[in-house]
Amino acid sequence: MRLDLNADVGESYGAWTLGNDAAVLNVVTSANVACGFHAGDPLTLRRTCRYAAERGVVVGAQVAYRDLVGFGRRFMDVPPDELAADVIYQLGALSATAQVEGTRVVYVKPHGALYNAVVHHEGQARAVIDAVVAVDRSLPVLGLPGSLVLELAADAGLRPVTEAFADRAYTPEGRLVPRTEPGAVLRDPAMVAARVVRLAREGVVTAVDGTDVEVRAESVCIHGDTPGAVVMARAVRAALEEAGVEIRPFVG
Amino acid sequence: MRLDLNADVGESYGAWTLGNDAAVLNVVTSANVACGFHAGDPLTLRRTCRYAAERGVVVGAQVAYRDLVGFGRRFMDVPPDELAADVIYQLGALSATAQVEGTRVVYVKPHGALYNAVVHHEGQARAVIDAVVAVDRSLPVLGLPGSLVLELAADAGLRPVTEAFADRAYTPEGRLVPRTEPGAVLRDPAMVAARVVRLAREGVVTAVDGTDVEVRAESVCIHGDTPGAVVMARAVRAALEEAGVEIRPFVG
Amino acid sequence: MRLDLNADVGESYGAWTLGNDAAVLNVVTSANVACGFHAGDPLTLRRTCRYAAERGVVVGAQVAYRDLVGFGRRFMDVPPDELAADVIYQLGALSATAQVEGTRVVYVKPHGALYNAVVHHEGQARAVIDAVVAVDRSLPVLGLPGSLVLELAADAGLRPVTEAFADRAYTPEGRLVPRTEPGAVLRDPAMVAARVVRLAREGVVTAVDGTDVEVRAESVCIHGDTPGAVVMARAVRAALEEAGVEIRPFVG
Amino acid sequence: MRLDLNADVGESYGAWTLGNDAAVLNVVTSANVACGFHAGDPLTLRRTCRYAAERGVVVGAQVAYRDLVGFGRRFMDVPPDELAADVIYQLGALSATAQVEGTRVVYVKPHGALYNAVVHHEGQARAVIDAVVAVDRSLPVLGLPGSLVLELAADAGLRPVTEAFADRAYTPEGRLVPRTEPGAVLRDPAMVAARVVRLAREGVVTAVDGTDVEVRAESVCIHGDTPGAVVMARAVRAALEEAGVEIRPFVG
Repeated sequence: MRLDLNADVGESYGAWTLGNDAAVLNVVTSANVACGFHAGDPLTLRRTCRYAAERGVVVGAQVAYRDLVGFGRRFMDVPPDELAADVIYQLGALSATAQVEGTRVVYVKPHGALYNAVVHHEGQARAVIDAVVAVDRSLPVLGLPGSLVLELAADAGLRPVTEAFADRAYTPEGRLVPRTEPGAVLRDPAMVAARVVRLAREGVVTAVDGTDVEVRAESVCIHGDTPGAVVMARAVRAALEEAGVEIRPFVG
Repeated sequence: MRLDLNADVGESYGAWTLGNDAAVLNVVTSANVACGFHAGDPLTLRRTCRYAAERGVVVGAQVAYRDLVGFGRRFMDVPPDELAADVIYQLGALSATAQVEGTRVVYVKPHGALYNAVVHHEGQARAVIDAVVAVDRSLPVLGLPGSLVLELAADAGLRPVTEAFADRAYTPEGRLVPRTEPGAVLRDPAMVAARVVRLAREGVVTAVDGTDVEVRAESVCIHGDTPGAVVMARAVRAALEEAGVEIRPFVG
Repeated sequence: MRLDLNADVGESYGAWTLGNDAAVLNVVTSANVACGFHAGDPLTLRRTCRYAAERGVVVGAQVAYRDLVGFGRRFMDVPPDELAADVIYQLGALSATAQVEGTRVVYVKPHGALYNAVVHHEGQARAVIDAVVAVDRSLPVLGLPGSLVLELAADAGLRPVTEAFADRAYTPEGRLVPRTEPGAVLRDPAMVAARVVRLAREGVVTAVDGTDVEVRAESVCIHGDTPGAVVMARAVRAALEEAGVEIRPFVG
Repeated sequence: MRLDLNADVGESYGAWTLGNDAAVLNVVTSANVACGFHAGDPLTLRRTCRYAAERGVVVGAQVAYRDLVGFGRRFMDVPPDELAADVIYQLGALSATAQVEGTRVVYVKPHGALYNAVVHHEGQARAVIDAVVAVDRSLPVLGLPGSLVLELAADAGLRPVTEAFADRAYTPEGRLVPRTEPGAVLRDPAMVAARVVRLAREGVVTAVDGTDVEVRAESVCIHGDTPGAVVMARAVRAALEEAGVEIRPFVG
């Protein structure tokens, strides 16, 4: 029984601070570091890589659409050749930054609207995979179970890594309840922690209709962008440790 | 007798085209490729690296201030830690892009107002050198003879490489005549070509007052951003070849 | 018989020049001036407004998605409240710029992917109309015949203005042949000019299948971004003048 | 005895929140609203103008260098014609936004590094004044006592308005103690409030050497970007009210 915990970090930008990276990097084992397109100025990225390196948290590239004002959360119909070049650019920028801080980029996770697009959008999913293949075939891709991007990753010889979401409700079919529906986001740390423990030990979560649904995930995504999120993240980690689940990166 | 010819390329951006990269890459031996901060979208960078690789032209990183609308030509008082992170970010982004096209970044040349600033601005010159040292100590830095950035490069164990400007007039002290003065920019291809040949063979150019002045340069910067510039670049190369000067990269 | 000719101008950005605004402003009666989000730095906008004012060409705001690198040509799923605020911002920025050059913004034309989106995307079409209503109800909106944005404009009490495209082929149903199909873009100036004359005089164009199709348009969009485009624009204007069609702005 | 209180607001950007605008707009009489170049996305500007209008707080344009990542705090050597166009663009964008929320821009205050530059940089100071004159001669300019920009404003027939800083120490010559020196920024709300009251009633503050120095200011700048800043702002306002100082905008 083992599990990776991942979270988005490095999402401050210049004078604007977002999230509590120091706190969240004390909890997770994998850090999805922004790459400057949706968030993360170069100095923030450097500091974030340093903190991750100091704590032994592995670094992944959180690649995104080039949309600062929208924080990468708005779908953009970027042609595949442009998107592939964008991903290569971001991967390289973060890799050099990680390297000067004594660590390196060891996986890729698309961010925001790109994350959602590559679940089904073939041109964009393929562009992301093409970019990763071109840069470094040893980099796993983190994504939603059943997503097209993970299927294409496997086809291309990359390692697909599935993730679950600690604070999200699931349908009986094992999909995320859309954020627009009531109850989609869970707020009780103890309950969330218990769900993650069950996921790690049994590979199931309780769906919104009360039935058990199988959710296979090598990593669980947690948040650190609010004080409450950090409290929840700590609760999840403590519960996993108490349950004897080994918490370690899915890479290396 | 040997000389490197370098030029700025990869400076288009999205729908905006600048320069004739295909033509200029047939003439030069070193390509100063933009890194996205003053010019150069990721897809343009990728294409430019591919063209350079196909022609055996080596790739350098043309790092710049983050100022698209000003094309990096306006001094920005960027604090050293921010500037160093900016340089690392740009170096990494271009390196990954070069690598996927079968080449790599082998030197660094600051662009525009940053180029001018690091002639004398200690904080910014040191930031550039710190960044290069952190990323890869094997990367030479291209700059103006006598500039602080080259002095700091040498102190840090980097290789400083001096350059001359084919189409610029020199003072009797060996400095560039400021662009604001009449006669600062030379327009006659034959005359410019003859000057570059003399520079290569004798290490001197004729200054504005008619005297000879020593100019030691391992590389000569030429332009390709206008049809006339490409004509001049070809004239320079042809004259050097005719004079038996070996035209090859200063690196490798 | 009268017709307006409109064209996109002000689309240079800093060091990057696009189109021949001086030439095109000698041909058209309405200038769709970029507003800085997809193209057009503030100094370019100012110069463009000055040239337009000098030539008696009226100024419209070419509002767009905030996407410089994509030139506003990539659909962005911008929420309506953000898009409305973006349109208000752009309208105001161009209005002040026009005013200091002795002219003013008298209509609105969405640009690129936004133009295409508001043909059918209700949230975005409504956001554009809401913004125009909030800023100035006297501003007409220029768009594709049959588009949702023009329908909503009319519902809101704005004046909808239809346009045709000089160099585009039409289906027998009066729609534009998609650019991806062969023959979608017409290249022969004489033929294009004859089509525009017929459009002005009879309200019909010859569709791709040879039949006549009714196209009602108060304005015809021409291009000026290539030397060939300027030649075609002049041919269109000359043919209209020769045919006795009055060429004047649809506004005022 | 009357005084205006001004503060910077509207400086959030997309997903990034900065300051507590709702709280600070309950305290001040003049709101320096960002214009999108250093901070402030269009939707944030719209909301900020709405809040200001609801509270009867007048709106000024906080014009800045185009430098999001540097928050406008890094000097940029922008040529005067570009800077003037930038100011016109920002003024127009905010004016339209204010107008749709039932208010309007009634003064101009340069932000950050531009604020400091126009104290002495003639080209940039003149560019700001030229822009304001071109847009609307009725707009006062808010600045540092003794600054060149206020002198040029007066020469151009604009109304110059001087401001003091509530939480800053002054030299015996009436200048601000540089932030790099110890004691430059005052942190005790009660002490700061007492200083502002004395400034309003007597036109003097106690300098760092204990002597009284005359500081003539029509407005006092306070901050709202931290919880402590809001506490201090409220203390200042309460003390002024208790002392019988009329707190009202310097405009209108």
